[in-house]
Amino acid sequence: MSVIAKHINPKFQHLFQDRFCFTPNEYELLLSYMQFQHIHKKDFYLRPGEICRTKAYLNKGCTRNFVVDERGHERILFFAFEDWWLGDFDSYYTQKPGTNYVQAIEDCELLVISKENFAMLEERIPKLKQWYTYKVTRSASASLKRMEEIRTLTPKERYLNLIEQHPHIFQRIPLQYIASFLNIEPQSLSRMRKRLAEER
Amino acid sequence: MSVIAKHINPKFQHLFQDRFCFTPNEYELLLSYMQFQHIHKKDFYLRPGEICRTKAYLNKGCTRNFVVDERGHERILFFAFEDWWLGDFDSYYTQKPGTNYVQAIEDCELLVISKENFAMLEERIPKLKQWYTYKVTRSASASLKRMEEIRTLTPKERYLNLIEQHPHIFQRIPLQYIASFLNIEPQSLSRMRKRLAEER
Repeated sequence: MSVIAKHINPKFQHLFQDRFCFTPNEYELLLSYMQFQHIHKKDFYLRPGEICRTKAYLNKGCTRNFVVDERGHERILFFAFEDWWLGDFDSYYTQKPGTNYVQAIEDCELLVISKENFAMLEERIPKLKQWYTYKVTRSASASLKRMEEIRTLTPKERYLNLIEQHPHIFQRIPLQYIASFLNIEPQSLSRMRKRLAEER
Repeated sequence: MSVIAKHINPKFQHLFQDRFCFTPNEYELLLSYMQFQHIHKKDFYLRPGEICRTKAYLNKGCTRNFVVDERGHERILFFAFEDWWLGDFDSYYTQKPGTNYVQAIEDCELLVISKENFAMLEERIPKLKQWYTYKVTRSASASLKRMEEIRTLTPKERYLNLIEQHPHIFQRIPLQYIASFLNIEPQSLSRMRKRLAEER
Protein backbone atom coordinates (compact mmCIF):
# COMPACT_ATOMS: atom_id res chain seq x y z
CA MET A 1 0.00 0.00 0.00
CA SER A 2 1.37 3.37 -0.98
CA VAL A 3 1.90 6.12 1.57
CA ILE A 4 -1.02 8.08 0.19
CA ALA A 5 -3.46 5.20 0.70
CA LYS A 6 -3.01 5.24 4.48
CA HIS A 7 -4.77 8.55 4.86
CA ILE A 8 -7.70 7.84 2.61
CA ASN A 9 -11.25 7.77 3.89
CA PRO A 10 -12.30 4.07 4.07
CA LYS A 11 -15.43 4.99 2.09
CA PHE A 12 -13.27 5.80 -0.93
CA GLN A 13 -11.74 2.33 -0.90
CA HIS A 14 -15.14 0.75 -0.29
CA LEU A 15 -16.65 2.64 -3.23
CA PHE A 16 -14.11 1.53 -5.79
CA GLN A 17 -12.86 -1.81 -4.47
CA ASP A 18 -16.10 -3.26 -3.06
CA ARG A 19 -18.95 -1.58 -4.93
CA PHE A 20 -17.32 -1.15 -8.32
CA CYS A 21 -15.01 -4.21 -8.02
CA PHE A 22 -11.71 -2.53 -8.90
CA THR A 23 -8.79 -4.96 -8.76
CA PRO A 24 -5.96 -3.91 -6.39
CA ASN A 25 -3.96 -2.86 -9.46
CA GLU A 26 -6.78 -0.73 -10.86
CA TYR A 27 -7.30 0.87 -7.47
CA GLU A 28 -3.60 1.67 -7.15
CA LEU A 29 -3.57 3.05 -10.69
CA LEU A 30 -6.43 5.41 -9.86
CA LEU A 31 -4.73 6.53 -6.64
CA SER A 32 -1.44 7.09 -8.45
CA TYR A 33 -3.10 9.88 -10.44
CA MET A 34 -4.72 11.55 -7.45
CA GLN A 35 -2.97 14.15 -5.36
CA PHE A 36 -3.60 15.39 -1.87
CA GLN A 37 -4.53 19.06 -1.61
CA HIS A 38 -5.22 20.94 1.60
CA ILE A 39 -7.53 23.93 1.80
CA HIS A 40 -7.71 26.04 4.91
CA LYS A 41 -11.03 27.02 6.41
CA LYS A 42 -12.57 29.92 4.45
CA ASP A 43 -10.22 29.42 1.47
CA PHE A 44 -11.64 28.60 -1.94
CA TYR A 45 -11.38 25.53 -4.11
CA LEU A 46 -13.08 27.45 -6.92
CA ARG A 47 -14.33 30.96 -7.63
CA PRO A 48 -16.70 32.26 -10.34
CA GLY A 49 -14.86 32.93 -13.59
CA GLU A 50 -12.40 30.10 -13.01
CA ILE A 51 -12.53 26.96 -15.11
CA CYS A 52 -13.04 23.76 -13.15
CA ARG A 53 -10.25 21.53 -14.48
CA THR A 54 -10.21 18.91 -11.73
CA LYS A 55 -12.41 16.49 -9.89
CA ALA A 56 -11.84 16.40 -6.13
CA TYR A 57 -12.82 13.79 -3.55
CA LEU A 58 -13.52 15.39 -0.17
CA ASN A 59 -11.44 13.16 2.07
CA LYS A 60 -11.95 15.31 5.17
CA GLY A 61 -13.82 18.52 6.00
CA CYS A 62 -16.85 20.24 4.58
CA THR A 63 -17.49 22.90 1.97
CA ARG A 64 -20.28 25.03 0.57
CA ASN A 65 -21.18 25.83 -3.05
CA PHE A 66 -22.67 29.27 -3.33
CA VAL A 67 -23.48 31.97 -5.84
CA VAL A 68 -23.87 35.70 -5.28
CA ASP A 69 -26.99 37.38 -6.63
CA GLU A 70 -26.93 40.85 -8.17
CA ARG A 71 -27.92 42.42 -4.85
CA GLY A 72 -24.69 40.98 -3.41
CA HIS A 73 -26.35 38.29 -1.32
CA GLU A 74 -24.69 34.89 -0.99
CA ARG A 75 -27.04 32.04 -1.88
CA ILE A 76 -25.90 28.62 -0.71
CA LEU A 77 -26.80 25.88 -3.19
CA PHE A 78 -25.50 22.92 -1.21
CA PHE A 79 -22.98 21.70 1.31
CA ALA A 80 -20.50 18.89 0.76
CA PHE A 81 -19.18 16.59 3.47
CA GLU A 82 -16.67 13.73 3.64
CA ASP A 83 -17.04 11.27 0.76
CA TRP A 84 -18.52 13.87 -1.64
CA TRP A 85 -16.97 15.12 -4.84
CA LEU A 86 -16.35 18.84 -5.31
CA GLY A 87 -16.52 21.10 -8.31
CA ASP A 88 -18.57 23.28 -10.58
CA PHE A 89 -20.34 20.62 -12.58
CA ASP A 90 -21.16 22.72 -15.63
CA SER A 91 -17.72 24.29 -15.85
CA TYR A 92 -16.00 20.89 -15.49
CA TYR A 93 -18.10 19.53 -18.29
CA THR A 94 -17.95 22.50 -20.71
CA GLN A 95 -14.51 23.83 -19.67
CA LYS A 96 -16.01 27.31 -19.64
CA PRO A 97 -15.67 29.68 -16.66
CA GLY A 98 -17.85 28.58 -13.75
CA THR A 99 -20.39 30.48 -11.65
CA ASN A 100 -19.99 28.83 -8.23
CA TYR A 101 -17.82 29.61 -5.24
CA VAL A 102 -16.65 26.40 -3.58
CA GLN A 103 -15.36 27.37 -0.14
CA ALA A 104 -13.99 25.35 2.78
CA ILE A 105 -16.14 25.64 5.92
CA GLU A 106 -13.55 23.60 7.87
CA ASP A 107 -9.92 22.79 7.03
CA CYS A 108 -10.30 20.36 4.14
CA GLU A 109 -8.29 17.52 2.70
CA LEU A 110 -8.96 16.73 -0.95
CA LEU A 111 -7.88 14.03 -3.36
CA VAL A 112 -7.62 15.74 -6.70
CA ILE A 113 -7.38 14.41 -10.25
CA SER A 114 -7.24 16.38 -13.50
CA LYS A 115 -9.98 16.02 -16.09
CA GLU A 116 -7.42 14.75 -18.65
CA ASN A 117 -6.07 12.07 -16.35
CA PHE A 118 -9.56 11.02 -15.35
CA ALA A 119 -10.55 10.65 -19.02
CA MET A 120 -7.40 8.64 -19.71
CA LEU A 121 -8.12 6.36 -16.73
CA GLU A 122 -11.74 5.88 -17.83
CA GLU A 123 -10.35 4.28 -20.99
CA ARG A 124 -7.95 2.08 -19.06
CA ILE A 125 -10.46 1.13 -16.33
CA PRO A 126 -13.96 0.73 -17.81
CA LYS A 127 -15.34 0.30 -14.27
CA LEU A 128 -14.29 3.89 -13.57
CA LYS A 129 -16.52 5.02 -16.43
CA GLN A 130 -19.33 2.90 -15.00
CA TRP A 131 -18.92 4.57 -11.64
CA TYR A 132 -18.91 8.03 -13.18
CA THR A 133 -22.09 7.36 -15.17
CA TYR A 134 -23.70 6.13 -11.95
CA LYS A 135 -22.51 9.21 -10.05
CA VAL A 136 -23.71 11.67 -12.69
CA THR A 137 -27.10 9.93 -12.79
CA ARG A 138 -27.39 10.28 -9.02
CA SER A 139 -26.36 13.95 -9.21
CA ALA A 140 -28.97 14.71 -11.85
CA SER A 141 -31.57 12.93 -9.79
CA ALA A 142 -30.56 14.74 -6.59
CA SER A 143 -30.68 18.16 -8.28
CA LEU A 144 -34.16 17.50 -9.63
CA LYS A 145 -35.33 16.33 -6.18
CA ARG A 146 -33.91 19.45 -4.62
CA MET A 147 -35.66 21.64 -7.20
CA GLU A 148 -38.91 19.84 -6.32
CA GLU A 149 -38.28 20.43 -2.62
CA ILE A 150 -37.62 24.14 -3.15
CA ARG A 151 -40.92 24.39 -5.04
CA THR A 152 -43.15 22.27 -2.81
CA LEU A 153 -41.93 22.14 0.79
CA THR A 154 -42.32 24.75 3.49
CA PRO A 155 -39.14 26.01 5.22
CA LYS A 156 -40.06 23.86 8.24
CA GLU A 157 -40.32 20.73 6.09
CA ARG A 158 -37.04 21.48 4.37
CA TYR A 159 -35.41 22.04 7.75
CA LEU A 160 -36.73 18.71 9.05
CA ASN A 161 -35.47 16.92 5.91
CA LEU A 162 -32.06 18.49 6.35
CA ILE A 163 -31.59 17.44 9.96
CA GLU A 164 -32.90 13.97 9.16
CA GLN A 165 -30.22 13.63 6.46
CA HIS A 166 -27.49 15.36 8.49
CA PRO A 167 -28.36 15.10 12.20
CA HIS A 168 -25.11 16.78 13.28
CA ILE A 169 -25.13 19.60 10.75
CA PHE A 170 -25.49 22.35 13.37
CA GLN A 171 -22.28 21.19 15.02
CA ARG A 172 -20.33 21.82 11.80
CA ILE A 173 -22.13 24.48 9.79
CA PRO A 174 -22.89 28.02 11.05
CA LEU A 175 -26.58 28.75 11.49
CA GLN A 176 -26.54 31.61 8.96
CA TYR A 177 -25.25 29.23 6.27
CA ILE A 178 -28.00 26.72 6.98
CA ALA A 179 -30.54 29.56 6.85
CA SER A 180 -29.17 30.62 3.45
CA PHE A 181 -29.38 27.04 2.18
CA LEU A 182 -33.02 26.85 3.38
CA ASN A 183 -33.68 30.29 1.90
CA ILE A 184 -34.97 31.78 5.15
CA GLU A 185 -33.75 34.50 7.49
CA PRO A 186 -31.36 33.37 10.27
CA GLN A 187 -33.78 34.79 12.88
CA SER A 188 -36.63 32.68 11.45
CA LEU A 189 -34.44 29.58 11.60
CA SER A 190 -33.54 30.29 15.24
CA ARG A 191 -37.20 30.74 16.16
CA MET A 192 -38.14 27.57 14.26
CA ARG A 193 -35.48 25.52 16.07
CA LYS A 194 -36.63 26.84 19.44
CA ARG A 195 -40.29 26.10 18.67
CA LEU A 196 -39.52 22.59 17.44
CA ALA A 197 -37.38 21.88 20.51
CA GLU A 198 -40.24 22.97 22.79
CA GLU A 199 -42.70 20.73 20.94
CA ARG A 200 -40.67 17.61 21.71
CA MET B 1 -36.47 2.96 -44.48
CA SER B 2 -39.17 1.49 -42.27
CA VAL B 3 -42.64 3.02 -42.11
CA ILE B 4 -41.99 4.32 -38.62
CA ALA B 5 -38.90 6.28 -39.70
CA LYS B 6 -40.90 8.50 -42.05
CA HIS B 7 -42.64 10.26 -39.20
CA ILE B 8 -39.63 10.83 -37.04
CA ASN B 9 -38.40 14.31 -36.18
CA PRO B 10 -35.25 14.96 -38.28
CA LYS B 11 -33.46 15.97 -35.06
CA PHE B 12 -33.73 12.39 -33.80
CA GLN B 13 -31.95 11.06 -36.85
CA HIS B 14 -29.39 13.86 -36.69
CA LEU B 15 -28.66 13.11 -33.03
CA PHE B 16 -27.92 9.44 -33.49
CA GLN B 17 -26.69 9.18 -37.08
CA ASP B 18 -24.67 12.41 -37.34
CA ARG B 19 -23.62 13.38 -33.84
CA PHE B 20 -23.17 9.89 -32.34
CA CYS B 21 -22.20 8.21 -35.64
CA PHE B 22 -24.66 5.30 -35.56
CA THR B 23 -24.39 3.08 -38.63
CA PRO B 24 -27.65 2.67 -40.59
CA ASN B 25 -27.99 -0.81 -39.04
CA GLU B 26 -27.52 0.48 -35.50
CA TYR B 27 -30.01 3.26 -36.13
CA GLU B 28 -32.58 0.80 -37.50
CA LEU B 29 -31.97 -1.51 -34.55
CA LEU B 30 -32.67 1.32 -32.11
CA LEU B 31 -35.84 2.32 -33.97
CA SER B 32 -37.04 -1.28 -34.09
CA TYR B 33 -37.34 -1.22 -30.29
CA MET B 34 -39.17 2.11 -30.13
CA GLN B 35 -42.91 2.42 -30.41
CA PHE B 36 -45.12 5.35 -31.28
CA GLN B 37 -47.48 6.43 -28.54
CA HIS B 38 -50.01 9.24 -28.78
CA ILE B 39 -51.16 11.27 -25.81
CA HIS B 40 -54.08 13.64 -26.11
CA LYS B 41 -53.86 17.18 -24.77
CA LYS B 42 -54.33 17.17 -20.96
CA ASP B 43 -53.73 13.41 -20.68
CA PHE B 44 -50.84 12.09 -18.61
CA TYR B 45 -47.70 10.23 -19.55
CA LEU B 46 -46.97 9.72 -15.84
CA ARG B 47 -48.61 10.40 -12.49
CA PRO B 48 -47.14 10.42 -8.96
CA GLY B 49 -47.05 6.91 -7.49
CA GLU B 50 -46.45 5.31 -10.87
CA ILE B 51 -43.10 3.77 -11.73
CA CYS B 52 -41.38 5.25 -14.77
CA ARG B 53 -40.50 2.15 -16.80
CA THR B 54 -39.89 3.78 -20.17
CA LYS B 55 -37.86 6.47 -21.84
CA ALA B 56 -39.82 8.58 -24.32
CA TYR B 57 -38.62 10.85 -27.10
CA LEU B 58 -41.01 13.76 -27.65
CA ASN B 59 -41.45 13.59 -31.41
CA LYS B 60 -44.21 16.20 -31.50
CA GLY B 61 -46.02 18.36 -28.96
CA CYS B 62 -45.16 19.76 -25.57
CA THR B 63 -45.57 18.65 -21.98
CA ARG B 64 -45.09 19.90 -18.45
CA ASN B 65 -43.57 18.18 -15.40
CA PHE B 66 -45.26 19.34 -12.24
CA VAL B 67 -45.66 18.43 -8.60
CA VAL B 68 -48.49 19.35 -6.22
CA ASP B 69 -47.55 20.86 -2.88
CA GLU B 70 -49.43 20.01 0.31
CA ARG B 71 -51.64 23.06 -0.09
CA GLY B 72 -52.84 21.57 -3.37
CA HIS B 73 -51.01 24.01 -5.63
CA GLU B 74 -49.48 22.80 -8.86
CA ARG B 75 -45.81 23.72 -9.20
CA ILE B 76 -44.38 23.45 -12.69
CA LEU B 77 -40.78 22.24 -12.69
CA PHE B 78 -40.16 22.39 -16.42
CA PHE B 79 -41.67 22.17 -19.88
CA ALA B 80 -40.56 19.78 -22.60
CA PHE B 81 -40.79 20.48 -26.31
CA GLU B 82 -40.00 18.55 -29.49
CA ASP B 83 -36.67 16.70 -29.32
CA TRP B 84 -36.73 16.35 -25.51
CA TRP B 85 -36.95 13.13 -23.54
CA LEU B 86 -39.77 12.63 -21.07
CA GLY B 87 -39.97 10.88 -17.74
CA ASP B 88 -39.53 11.01 -14.01
CA PHE B 89 -35.76 10.77 -13.82
CA ASP B 90 -35.47 9.48 -10.27
CA SER B 91 -38.22 6.91 -10.70
CA TYR B 92 -36.73 5.65 -13.98
CA TYR B 93 -33.41 5.20 -12.31
CA THR B 94 -34.54 3.67 -8.99
CA GLN B 95 -37.70 1.95 -10.31
CA LYS B 96 -39.54 3.30 -7.27
CA PRO B 97 -42.83 5.23 -7.54
CA GLY B 98 -42.30 8.72 -8.94
CA THR B 99 -43.42 12.12 -7.69
CA ASN B 100 -43.98 14.02 -10.95
CA TYR B 101 -47.00 14.51 -13.14
CA VAL B 102 -46.00 14.54 -16.80
CA GLN B 103 -48.93 15.97 -18.75
CA ALA B 104 -49.46 16.80 -22.41
CA ILE B 105 -50.09 20.51 -23.04
CA GLU B 106 -50.77 19.78 -26.73
CA ASP B 107 -51.58 16.48 -28.47
CA CYS B 108 -48.26 14.64 -28.28
CA GLU B 109 -46.49 11.99 -30.29
CA LEU B 110 -43.89 9.98 -28.41
CA LEU B 111 -41.31 7.38 -29.36
CA VAL B 112 -41.16 5.04 -26.40
CA ILE B 113 -38.66 2.38 -25.36
CA SER B 114 -38.67 0.22 -22.23
CA LYS B 115 -35.83 0.47 -19.71
CA GLU B 116 -35.00 -3.23 -20.29
CA ASN B 117 -34.76 -2.85 -24.05
CA PHE B 118 -32.73 0.32 -23.71
CA ALA B 119 -30.25 -1.46 -21.39
CA MET B 120 -30.02 -4.38 -23.81
CA LEU B 121 -29.36 -2.00 -26.72
CA GLU B 122 -26.72 -0.11 -24.73
CA GLU B 123 -24.76 -3.37 -24.62
CA ARG B 124 -25.21 -3.98 -28.34
CA ILE B 125 -24.54 -0.36 -29.38
CA PRO B 126 -21.83 1.17 -27.18
CA LYS B 127 -22.48 4.56 -28.87
CA LEU B 128 -25.95 4.50 -27.34
CA LYS B 129 -24.37 4.29 -23.89
CA GLN B 130 -22.08 7.17 -24.84
CA TRP B 131 -25.08 9.26 -25.84
CA TYR B 132 -26.91 8.45 -22.62
CA THR B 133 -23.92 9.41 -20.46
CA TYR B 134 -23.71 12.67 -22.38
CA LYS B 135 -27.44 13.28 -21.97
CA VAL B 136 -27.44 12.58 -18.23
CA THR B 137 -24.45 14.87 -17.78
CA ARG B 138 -26.31 17.65 -19.59
CA SER B 139 -29.42 17.02 -17.47
CA ALA B 140 -27.47 17.21 -14.22
CA SER B 141 -25.85 20.39 -15.41
CA ALA B 142 -29.17 21.93 -16.49
CA SER B 143 -30.82 21.11 -13.16
CA LEU B 144 -28.00 22.73 -11.23
CA LYS B 145 -28.18 25.82 -13.45
CA ARG B 146 -31.90 26.03 -12.92
CA MET B 147 -31.45 25.74 -9.14
CA GLU B 148 -28.93 28.58 -9.35
CA GLU B 149 -31.37 30.66 -11.38
CA ILE B 150 -34.18 30.10 -8.89
CA ARG B 151 -31.87 31.24 -6.09
CA THR B 152 -30.25 34.26 -7.76
CA LEU B 153 -32.41 35.77 -10.49
CA THR B 154 -35.39 38.06 -10.12
CA PRO B 155 -38.69 37.00 -11.74
CA LYS B 156 -38.04 39.54 -14.50
CA GLU B 157 -34.60 38.08 -15.24
CA ARG B 158 -36.00 34.54 -15.27
CA TYR B 159 -38.76 35.67 -17.60
CA LEU B 160 -36.26 37.27 -19.98
CA ASN B 161 -34.12 34.11 -19.95
CA LEU B 162 -37.17 32.01 -20.73
CA ILE B 163 -38.29 34.02 -23.73
CA GLU B 164 -34.72 34.18 -25.00
CA GLN B 165 -34.54 30.38 -24.92
CA HIS B 166 -38.10 29.88 -26.19
CA PRO B 167 -39.20 32.98 -28.12
CA HIS B 168 -42.55 31.43 -29.11
CA ILE B 169 -43.44 29.96 -25.74
CA PHE B 170 -46.50 32.19 -25.22
CA GLN B 171 -48.00 30.85 -28.44
CA ARG B 172 -47.93 27.30 -27.07
CA ILE B 173 -48.06 27.45 -23.28
CA PRO B 174 -50.87 29.10 -21.27
CA LEU B 175 -49.80 32.16 -19.32
CA GLN B 176 -50.75 30.64 -15.95
CA TYR B 177 -48.39 27.71 -16.60
CA ILE B 178 -45.53 30.04 -17.44
CA ALA B 179 -46.30 32.02 -14.26
CA SER B 180 -46.17 28.79 -12.22
CA PHE B 181 -42.85 27.84 -13.80
CA LEU B 182 -41.48 31.31 -12.95
CA ASN B 183 -42.99 31.03 -9.47
CA ILE B 184 -44.95 34.28 -9.73
CA GLU B 185 -48.65 35.15 -9.84
CA PRO B 186 -50.28 35.18 -13.31
CA GLN B 187 -51.32 38.83 -12.73
CA SER B 188 -47.71 39.81 -12.01
CA LEU B 189 -46.58 38.08 -15.20
CA SER B 190 -49.23 39.94 -17.24
CA ARG B 191 -48.16 43.26 -15.76
CA MET B 192 -44.49 42.45 -16.36
CA ARG B 193 -45.14 41.57 -20.02
CA LYS B 194 -47.07 44.79 -20.53
CA ARG B 195 -44.38 46.90 -18.89
CA LEU B 196 -41.59 45.27 -20.92
CA ALA B 197 -43.55 45.71 -24.16
CA GLU B 198 -43.98 49.43 -23.39
CA GLU B 199 -40.25 49.83 -22.70
CA ARG B 200 -39.31 48.60 -26.19
